[in-house]
Amino acid sequence: MPKYDKHGLTEAIRTLGTLNTDSMFSNDFLLTWEKHDDEIEATFLVADILRGMRGENISSRVFDSGLGISLFRDNSTRTRFSYASACNMLGLEVQDLDEGKSQIAHGETVRETANMISFMADVIGIRDDMYIGKGNAYMREVAEAVERGHADGVLEQRPTLVNLQCDIDHPTQSMADALHLINHYGNVKALRGKKIAMTWAYSPSYGKPLSVPQGLIGLMTRFGAEVVLAHPEGYEVMPEVEAVAKRNAEQSGGSFVRTNSMDEAFADADVVYPKSWAPFAAMEKRTELYGARDDAGIKALEQELLAENARHTEWEADERRMASTKGGKALYMHCLPADISGVSCKQGEAAASVFDRYRVPLYKEASYKPYIIAAMIFLSKFDDPATTLQRLIETGTPRIR
Amino acid sequence: MPKYDKHGLTEAIRTLGTLNTDSMFSNDFLLTWEKHDDEIEATFLVADILRGMRGENISSRVFDSGLGISLFRDNSTRTRFSYASACNMLGLEVQDLDEGKSQIAHGETVRETANMISFMADVIGIRDDMYIGKGNAYMREVAEAVERGHADGVLEQRPTLVNLQCDIDHPTQSMADALHLINHYGNVKALRGKKIAMTWAYSPSYGKPLSVPQGLIGLMTRFGAEVVLAHPEGYEVMPEVEAVAKRNAEQSGGSFVRTNSMDEAFADADVVYPKSWAPFAAMEKRTELYGARDDAGIKALEQELLAENARHTEWEADERRMASTKGGKALYMHCLPADISGVSCKQGEAAASVFDRYRVPLYKEASYKPYIIAAMIFLSKFDDPATTLQRLIETGTPRIR
Amino acid sequence: MPKYDKHGLTEAIRTLGTLNTDSMFSNDFLLTWEKHDDEIEATFLVADILRGMRGENISSRVFDSGLGISLFRDNSTRTRFSYASACNMLGLEVQDLDEGKSQIAHGETVRETANMISFMADVIGIRDDMYIGKGNAYMREVAEAVERGHADGVLEQRPTLVNLQCDIDHPTQSMADALHLINHYGNVKALRGKKIAMTWAYSPSYGKPLSVPQGLIGLMTRFGAEVVLAHPEGYEVMPEVEAVAKRNAEQSGGSFVRTNSMDEAFADADVVYPKSWAPFAAMEKRTELYGARDDAGIKALEQELLAENARHTEWEADERRMASTKGGKALYMHCLPADISGVSCKQGEAAASVFDRYRVPLYKEASYKPYIIAAMIFLSKFDDPATTLQRLIETGTPRIR
Repeated sequence: MPKYDKHGLTEAIRTLGTLNTDSMFSNDFLLTWEKHDDEIEATFLVADILRGMRGENISSRVFDSGLGISLFRDNSTRTRFSYASACNMLGLEVQDLDEGKSQIAHGETVRETANMISFMADVIGIRDDMYIGKGNAYMREVAEAVERGHADGVLEQRPTLVNLQCDIDHPTQSMADALHLINHYGNVKALRGKKIAMTWAYSPSYGKPLSVPQGLIGLMTRFGAEVVLAHPEGYEVMPEVEAVAKRNAEQSGGSFVRTNSMDEAFADADVVYPKSWAPFAAMEKRTELYGARDDAGIKALEQELLAENARHTEWEADERRMASTKGGKALYMHCLPADISGVSCKQGEAAASVFDRYRVPLYKEASYKPYIIAAMIFLSKFDDPATTLQRLIETGTPRIR
Repeated sequence: MPKYDKHGLTEAIRTLGTLNTDSMFSNDFLLTWEKHDDEIEATFLVADILRGMRGENISSRVFDSGLGISLFRDNSTRTRFSYASACNMLGLEVQDLDEGKSQIAHGETVRETANMISFMADVIGIRDDMYIGKGNAYMREVAEAVERGHADGVLEQRPTLVNLQCDIDHPTQSMADALHLINHYGNVKALRGKKIAMTWAYSPSYGKPLSVPQGLIGLMTRFGAEVVLAHPEGYEVMPEVEAVAKRNAEQSGGSFVRTNSMDEAFADADVVYPKSWAPFAAMEKRTELYGARDDAGIKALEQELLAENARHTEWEADERRMASTKGGKALYMHCLPADISGVSCKQGEAAASVFDRYRVPLYKEASYKPYIIAAMIFLSKFDDPATTLQRLIETGTPRIR
Repeated sequence: MPKYDKHGLTEAIRTLGTLNTDSMFSNDFLLTWEKHDDEIEATFLVADILRGMRGENISSRVFDSGLGISLFRDNSTRTRFSYASACNMLGLEVQDLDEGKSQIAHGETVRETANMISFMADVIGIRDDMYIGKGNAYMREVAEAVERGHADGVLEQRPTLVNLQCDIDHPTQSMADALHLINHYGNVKALRGKKIAMTWAYSPSYGKPLSVPQGLIGLMTRFGAEVVLAHPEGYEVMPEVEAVAKRNAEQSGGSFVRTNSMDEAFADADVVYPKSWAPFAAMEKRTELYGARDDAGIKALEQELLAENARHTEWEADERRMASTKGGKALYMHCLPADISGVSCKQGEAAASVFDRYRVPLYKEASYKPYIIAAMIFLSKFDDPATTLQRLIETGTPRIR
């Protein structure tokens, strides 16, 4: 359900007009912690406004033509559809660039490709989460290349970048998750003092990206929440991102703590986010092995990690743990798809009965992503977003005639 | 050639306004025999109106943005292009979901995927004709999932489904075929008493779907025609669909008979539709073998079926049989591509000289499909289709400036 | 940078109005030498006008809906993006038809496929450069098929064809290259007397198409330039195209000469275009071997050609040769991607320092291609292009709201 009806839209746009989003214009969205508070708030507002407009059958097609390039290192139905939905909502046609998994281009090759695909590109969405130290760096290389291309007169417009998941952050996921929480509790202030447990959970699969837990602790700590990161020893995330979480918590008046006990994390929690990931150190090692094309090493590491994982099958969001949360009713979150015990695998991240009980909120959580992506694009394309949105509403072109 | 000029369009829209299409709104198009006569007539009318509008360079873009999801179990250039054309004509951008051939998801997995791809989806077109008892059932699962997703507030709109071919029916094909006949003879009443022979024909390939013959006998029997289904013994279609055909024929004042003689079917026929298909019983067995992942069994069945097929190479639409039709000039139909003797294979469904003589009508037959699909989408999206179409014509936005 | 501002646009449109483009309407763009001088000039003008409109944020969306079909024999990120960009700019949605590399359909199969994909097609872009004597012939077959389909009432509109590269010509490349030169020197008259060296260069890869050098000599000779074609003995291009170049040069008051010395070509040149290609005779032989499915023969030929190539590694655009050009500052051109010595290969078409120095002009050269393709489409779709463009500018629909 959209948050805003027609009257609510106008008020939300008025609030948007009071926020400073100047530095989002003609800029990229790569890490949430590079954005100041007004910018984060504006992204939530625009996402809810775009959703409200759709609810009121008001077109948000701001591009009469234009391309949204997608550049994915791996297949991803969900991210693909979210990005395609966001682009479509704004009037951009998606054009996929498939570079293949293994090909990690560098330097001038990146510069050339980035320019060659960008003649009509307004946005480039990149998902590159496979190699530690590479994904976010690659995005910055592309951004620099198109910035230069525009300055050199090669590109008529400077396409802006949206990070659709990298080795460090997953801003479209964490922002969608946060907006889900905000609307679940009514407003962002309600997150103050809430205990949010981002916790590792067992999965029989290997090498899940760190960007979800990192994105979560890097963002949720901004709203005054009591954020707990729980994982078995050895499953540490990037120290830089923990540092971000600590700093955020200090500034927002919340807290950030780490524990090796899933029980401790769940106890009295308002929100639980149980999800598997690979240890940061192992992912670093994997990147080196890939760099050296050491196939035997990669296989050995995989076996090692699976064996290590298997020592922690007990890390499951089960009914006992859910019962220990605030009132036994913590909000269960996941980026989907989840590994569900006895359903998608023998033993997984969550008990089937837990997962089933939260199906509707989980789908709602996911439903925010296209709007968040669209909001990121919108704010990078309009220097006065409030006025543009107000004009769209006044014009009132119907989305469906 | 479009049926309607500008004046004809207005009259056709007036006729459309007298038909009751209420239950098509926000509904799916899965089987023609689930639609009452007004709905079938309205679909033909809207298809011809959309084609007429295109002829008059009047835009039929009713969606300012929106996605048309396509979900195909197998590759299909023609259906893909027909669906893409229909979506494009209405303003929807196609987004493909490739699930792969083998993966037949069930239950909550279907529910999750259906929701995840539908945030901006106005239509979902599904082609799933490979396994008896599965394709249509899968479509209903998806429909139920998005219905719930919309009710739960996950989806802003309820995407409607179009059956692009299933194990039971092929409504976009049979409706396009029927509209071809209607326009060939001038009007639907002219089909009354016409002998239409839907007949099996030999093909060297294995396991062609039953949905075409089933769709044909399930639809053509509604117009008072004398429908004959001919096939060698053992090549029976689904008994439920034969029952539909019988009931239809009784109600429409036509007839439905079955024969094991191709000659009998062709004799004095007004329309012949010679086309290969696999026996229903064999397709059921195949579905079981796939379910049990019995590769050896699948191969054995394939050999068995090819051997059985090879006993009926005589079932060909040849010149002798064509000469036996009404005045030697029956209208030859096919869903394309056809197996043509001496051209695409050594021995096939039709003699090359027969096929060549009917090339233009065959292409015309195919040309109705995009408009039929667009009409199905249109009628599921507008509660007062006549008024919407009239407004489009009055506004008169040119398709090409 | 667009050439025209708002005032410049109106003047350019006035010039366009004085040119005779009647025979481009409803016609295809297959070879530049089939187009008379007004048509070539109009294509440049429309490309620059469309670019200028984009610079002024004026929408060039002339199609409210419609499909641009792409039919590529091989993968090509750059051509794909250029074509998609051109279609998008005009309002056409790209729909890809992947026929696979090996499948070279003929006769009625081409006719059937061409019709089946064209029900909503306004344009068909084809890239088919792999087999001598086939690519351009195939395009003409498709053109004839849709012409007939339209005449027969199968297709509501006659899609026009754009040659995105064939065995004979590469008009979108050569026209983009020429427009780059025109804008580099200020106007087309400035090309008169310029020495343009189209020269073979060494590449470790095998079988690069002839369409680039052929396209270049077939077009650049029209502007009064001194065109030199240089290659090692045995690397001849198609004699028919050399004949075109000679005739053009005579008519335009320029010249066309052939040499076997790269040094001679570079000496005092204003423009150099060093690029590898396969010998015409070898490509003819390869086509025969493919036709006979002689895999051993194909492999043997490949080895032979690589060995022959390796005898000419000395053909490189190096600093010594660049220094010998006019003032040491010839404009270096390439269709990209280039084989750069020590970067993309051990030894290639150009020295790294040369390539690097010309990166910006090379990217600018490439940037013209989407506009050239869009101009070709535009001129085939509007019988009075100047009036249509003037109306677009007066209406002034913003591309970005």
